[in-house]
Amino acid sequence: MVKPRVQLSDLSVCEHGGEQDGADVIDFSVNLNPYGPPDFVLDVIKSAIDAIKIYPDTECSEIRARISQKFGCDTGEVLVGAGVSELIQLVTLTFMKTRALMPQHTYGEYAVAAKMMGAKIKRIEMPDLRIDTELIMAEMKPDDVLFLCNPNNPTGQYLAKNAVAQILKEAERIDALVVLDEAYVDFVKHPFPAHTLATRNMIILRSLTKSFAIPGIRVGYAISAVENVKAMEKIQVPWSVSVFAQEIAAAAISTEGDAFLAETIEKVERSKEKMENALGIHSDANFYAVDVGNGREAKHALLEAGIRVRDCSSFGLPHHIRFSIRTDDENELLLHNFSLEKF
Amino acid sequence: MVKPRVQLSDLSVCEHGGEQDGADVIDFSVNLNPYGPPDFVLDVIKSAIDAIKIYPDTECSEIRARISQKFGCDTGEVLVGAGVSELIQLVTLTFMKTRALMPQHTYGEYAVAAKMMGAKIKRIEMPDLRIDTELIMAEMKPDDVLFLCNPNNPTGQYLAKNAVAQILKEAERIDALVVLDEAYVDFVKHPFPAHTLATRNMIILRSLTKSFAIPGIRVGYAISAVENVKAMEKIQVPWSVSVFAQEIAAAAISTEGDAFLAETIEKVERSKEKMENALGIHSDANFYAVDVGNGREAKHALLEAGIRVRDCSSFGLPHHIRFSIRTDDENELLLHNFSLEKF
Repeated sequence: MVKPRVQLSDLSVCEHGGEQDGADVIDFSVNLNPYGPPDFVLDVIKSAIDAIKIYPDTECSEIRARISQKFGCDTGEVLVGAGVSELIQLVTLTFMKTRALMPQHTYGEYAVAAKMMGAKIKRIEMPDLRIDTELIMAEMKPDDVLFLCNPNNPTGQYLAKNAVAQILKEAERIDALVVLDEAYVDFVKHPFPAHTLATRNMIILRSLTKSFAIPGIRVGYAISAVENVKAMEKIQVPWSVSVFAQEIAAAAISTEGDAFLAETIEKVERSKEKMENALGIHSDANFYAVDVGNGREAKHALLEAGIRVRDCSSFGLPHHIRFSIRTDDENELLLHNFSLEKF
Repeated sequence: MVKPRVQLSDLSVCEHGGEQDGADVIDFSVNLNPYGPPDFVLDVIKSAIDAIKIYPDTECSEIRARISQKFGCDTGEVLVGAGVSELIQLVTLTFMKTRALMPQHTYGEYAVAAKMMGAKIKRIEMPDLRIDTELIMAEMKPDDVLFLCNPNNPTGQYLAKNAVAQILKEAERIDALVVLDEAYVDFVKHPFPAHTLATRNMIILRSLTKSFAIPGIRVGYAISAVENVKAMEKIQVPWSVSVFAQEIAAAAISTEGDAFLAETIEKVERSKEKMENALGIHSDANFYAVDVGNGREAKHALLEAGIRVRDCSSFGLPHHIRFSIRTDDENELLLHNFSLEKF
């Protein structure tokens, strides 16, 4: 019997929302744009079917060109991957040496990808569930890889430009790497252009999954210095971004895609206002982490009412559930069940 | 500046066939079934378009069930990945400790995935370009990971059951891991059922890409002992197999898929006979490595005649080109250009 590498011994599979148990429910456990996917994206697949005969372009040239145009950066500063999931692993494969830093309560795959490389995990305290810039800077050491989900999953907090710039300045000073995961940034009201801060000490990750509601196909991208992109390219799984993912991403990163986002995210914002007024809560993202006493019990009670939310135990928040913003009618149903206080 | 891990310093991107230079050529450089993809596979995509809204089933339950039925194994002995490419990396991520063994001339991604883990690469001599079982067994040490591409890319040699069983017995005795990559096994005339040899010391890799000519979508699978599958699952990128890839694989692993393979591969075999008679060569697979004096020059000369072949320099065979079997008409064109001896 050949044993796995010893570094993998304390790893377990990360938990995610959107379980496929076949239950006919309204799914608030996945944080997708409730108005997607747009028809023009579905149409692209139909016209791209024949491309299945061809190996994917390993360079993802078309998407890279569109992203570099969108952000005003060089195509060499862009790396396309099979979703942010692939890119998180690619970052640790390339840069993880001894230690990963991350806020106490955040996306679970950062820790999996770090442990995979045998790194130590240092979780940084979140007083009142808030990410604290000072605590992060006090902890950062040379060669650390810091994961910042901005806005943070599951707490919905968005760090402003100043906070990120401060952290980045410290990372440059001591030579650490900041991974800024902007998977949900399209849902933030006034996001700052993180790529204008980009240095060799930061890698920005972005996804099309949530904004366009296309989790079935895998595509995301990284923006960083050319040297960092080149280093990651060397070990990226060849052809990892399928022809369909490439066609869809090219269609989405467009004026048509921007118009879809502007229109639908305005609707999401209006729905957020209603939700926040009703429950007295706030989030910078399109989802909320709410203290319900016992997340697991609340999840099961809501499931019986035809509503799936995410139990936050795996985020280290057993009292909380996480739910996303959906259409007004669906949100009303959630609010109605909240008012019944079944849990 | 954050430096990449030191293990990655001598890595470079692996070369592959099928360059997308936009040239309008007949592509003998990719080893795909010339009669694919079948219509029933293309139809599946059309009816699956709506599934883009849903996260892929991380368990790939439907494909796993079909594979386990096909091979008479347990579903827990099957792992589905985004192509053999993802699975090769997953094997090294999970099991690579200090040294990778592989034949001198073989698929380039084995070495990339091994180096990514900081492993040493030991290439085993191939007298007369043949894989020699004795030389392999003499070299194998505990904890080694041996990559065997069967049939071998680019030389087309297929190791018979006895040879693989011998190697496996030695691997069990000293506790090494054998990775048997059967990406091209559907093109072998009388393949042996490798999964019946399966032990905890072997991982079989299989692809649908070549047999069904569907390189645009990424799907492949591994068969091994339950413990090995579980260890790899822990670090597999979540949702790496897209919904389209899952639908297509489920459609292909079927009686309809088997019928397509039986019919088209018989045609390929008849074409192979003609090719082998004309050139006095032999291969157990659907491609040939042929000594043409200077592979690079031959490639360029053939490109001018509208034919793309693979220059074998990156396999350590600068005198050779590799070309696949295509339809009879296309093969005739290749033979015609060979007869002109332009190179």
